[in-house]
Amino acid sequence: MSRYLAGRLRGLTPYVPGERTDAYQLRLNFNESPYPPLEQVEEAVRGAARGLNRYADPDCTLLREAIGRVNGLPGECVLAANGLDQVLFLSLLAFAGPDRPIRLPDITYTYYDDFIAVLGIPCERVPLKEDFTIDPEDYMTPGVMPVIVDPNAPTGLALPKGAVEAILRADPNRPVIIDEAYAGFGAESSLPLIRDYPNLIIARTLSKGAALAGARVGYALGQKEIISELASARSLTDLYGVSAMGQAAGIAALENWELITASCQRIAAERDRTAERLRALHCKVLPSLTNFLFVRPPAPAGSVFEALKARGVLVRHWDQPRVKDYLRVSVGTGEEMDRFIAILSEILEGAL
Amino acid sequence: MSRYLAGRLRGLTPYVPGERTDAYQLRLNFNESPYPPLEQVEEAVRGAARGLNRYADPDCTLLREAIGRVNGLPGECVLAANGLDQVLFLSLLAFAGPDRPIRLPDITYTYYDDFIAVLGIPCERVPLKEDFTIDPEDYMTPGVMPVIVDPNAPTGLALPKGAVEAILRADPNRPVIIDEAYAGFGAESSLPLIRDYPNLIIARTLSKGAALAGARVGYALGQKEIISELASARSLTDLYGVSAMGQAAGIAALENWELITASCQRIAAERDRTAERLRALHCKVLPSLTNFLFVRPPAPAGSVFEALKARGVLVRHWDQPRVKDYLRVSVGTGEEMDRFIAILSEILEGAL
Repeated sequence: MSRYLAGRLRGLTPYVPGERTDAYQLRLNFNESPYPPLEQVEEAVRGAARGLNRYADPDCTLLREAIGRVNGLPGECVLAANGLDQVLFLSLLAFAGPDRPIRLPDITYTYYDDFIAVLGIPCERVPLKEDFTIDPEDYMTPGVMPVIVDPNAPTGLALPKGAVEAILRADPNRPVIIDEAYAGFGAESSLPLIRDYPNLIIARTLSKGAALAGARVGYALGQKEIISELASARSLTDLYGVSAMGQAAGIAALENWELITASCQRIAAERDRTAERLRALHCKVLPSLTNFLFVRPPAPAGSVFEALKARGVLVRHWDQPRVKDYLRVSVGTGEEMDRFIAILSEILEGAL
Repeated sequence: MSRYLAGRLRGLTPYVPGERTDAYQLRLNFNESPYPPLEQVEEAVRGAARGLNRYADPDCTLLREAIGRVNGLPGECVLAANGLDQVLFLSLLAFAGPDRPIRLPDITYTYYDDFIAVLGIPCERVPLKEDFTIDPEDYMTPGVMPVIVDPNAPTGLALPKGAVEAILRADPNRPVIIDEAYAGFGAESSLPLIRDYPNLIIARTLSKGAALAGARVGYALGQKEIISELASARSLTDLYGVSAMGQAAGIAALENWELITASCQRIAAERDRTAERLRALHCKVLPSLTNFLFVRPPAPAGSVFEALKARGVLVRHWDQPRVKDYLRVSVGTGEEMDRFIAILSEILEGAL
């Protein structure tokens, strides 16, 4: 039933995010930070609230400079956006189209599908290898724009060293989008490649490590020219991008980056501890460099998912051929993961 | 120079918003509220800041219910969005296209042009009448989607009574977008028509009267069916719409709506007082039902604009055929308008 929809959206069904309810005791299905944002964020946001009658700076100048400082780039090499999703949407809008198809793995962030469908972008899906890794060779076809999440979701696996550079070099005339949503948890970033590759766009977010999921602050890094093209796309579709409060929250987090880094390290340590304990429970656990684990339990994953849910624990499970035996589990605090492991042990004991 | 841009955006130039600088003493060029947001907003935002590590509710359920309560509608008749601009973008994305052209006045909110260009929507521009009013007959062609700002910007003029209903009735199979960005300052809203016309979408914002320009909270009102189609378009392009802080700020303003209403009345009274004083200075002033005035000074408007700017006062001026003799002046506080009138008098005395 779409009485009024024009052709473009007819028949499209939006992505369904993880289940959200307060009825669960453990929310491990959004890859959120389990730690509250910094106190400095709270103060900064409060200050911004007092001036909300005024429009925010649409160029997000101070936020871009703060992002630049943390990443060793000038502000003109940064685009600030209303979440990482907006960076991805704009990248597809600006750089892909009938004259430039995109290529991405068969298993990756599924929200891309919506953008691709809405924008009518020709898209080729390349299967991950049997072990869920990406073969860089698959993304070297000239004229085709690669869109790669690194480390990938939901697998948590990072690209091999040198892969991004080889892909960039394969065709310097088409942009390459590297989605580093999960930067900061141990993977090597493609950041140093920006200097030499004008066709690189790195997409990032303050939602995960910086604990600002609710603030909607994403950004893109790249050389001045390609960033200014992306900035045009943003201005053409969304004048303001980031709210005044999002800008303030982001700046406060970036100005205290050593605290954010420490928090990410704590999460990475808890991730590795949890992976070990899962392996002891006879789970297969992929070597994650993110804030989540991709886990194959020694029992049907769909049943384990339901059993966890019945006990108040939300994780993610996709009922799709290649991943249906796996669960994606966000890394919480140590205490949360203790509870998770205890509940999972109980379930697996009953199941085996 | 657009080395990487795909065809769709090549050659497009984004809308330029009003000049923004702290070097001016009077910022009357954004149609912002001159009053700070409510104290309750500050407290609500502070509370939201503490939970920013979690993603916000993408459906904005509580915000939609709060908007619904103020407008006598259930939450399912409300879409919450990242600013009114997003409502407009989504309305064009969802409801317009090659199979449904749109029609809008030649003089209206100019940011529409960007959306139209990006989305490649066939668009017909109808000239306003000589007196800057809209002729409703122009928007009755079946199959063509009207997009009308009411009251219109930058003229400030409202549609005549009965016009929207006649337009809705002319073709019940195509949506009609009524942009009520400036609701609350005295114009009659089309709100009561929602009950009988499933093809009506009313677009609103909390940026103006509710003094939340920096928070990015817009919304659409309509019957459940058309709103759910618009909600699909939002989910397909932007999962989260409004940040956690935007949702909290909006709810706090809506829960204290009587204070917002009082603030709007104060601004409307100041507008009328200022209009009288401008007429006494031999300006032509259109009868505005918004928080701004469209003013033809008795001297070249471009020169007056520059002279105001040189004295620290920013208003808007467009160097375009039909409006080049006019200035758009946002209504500030009483004290601000006293200063504006004093400075303008001085300029006009010198000019005449």
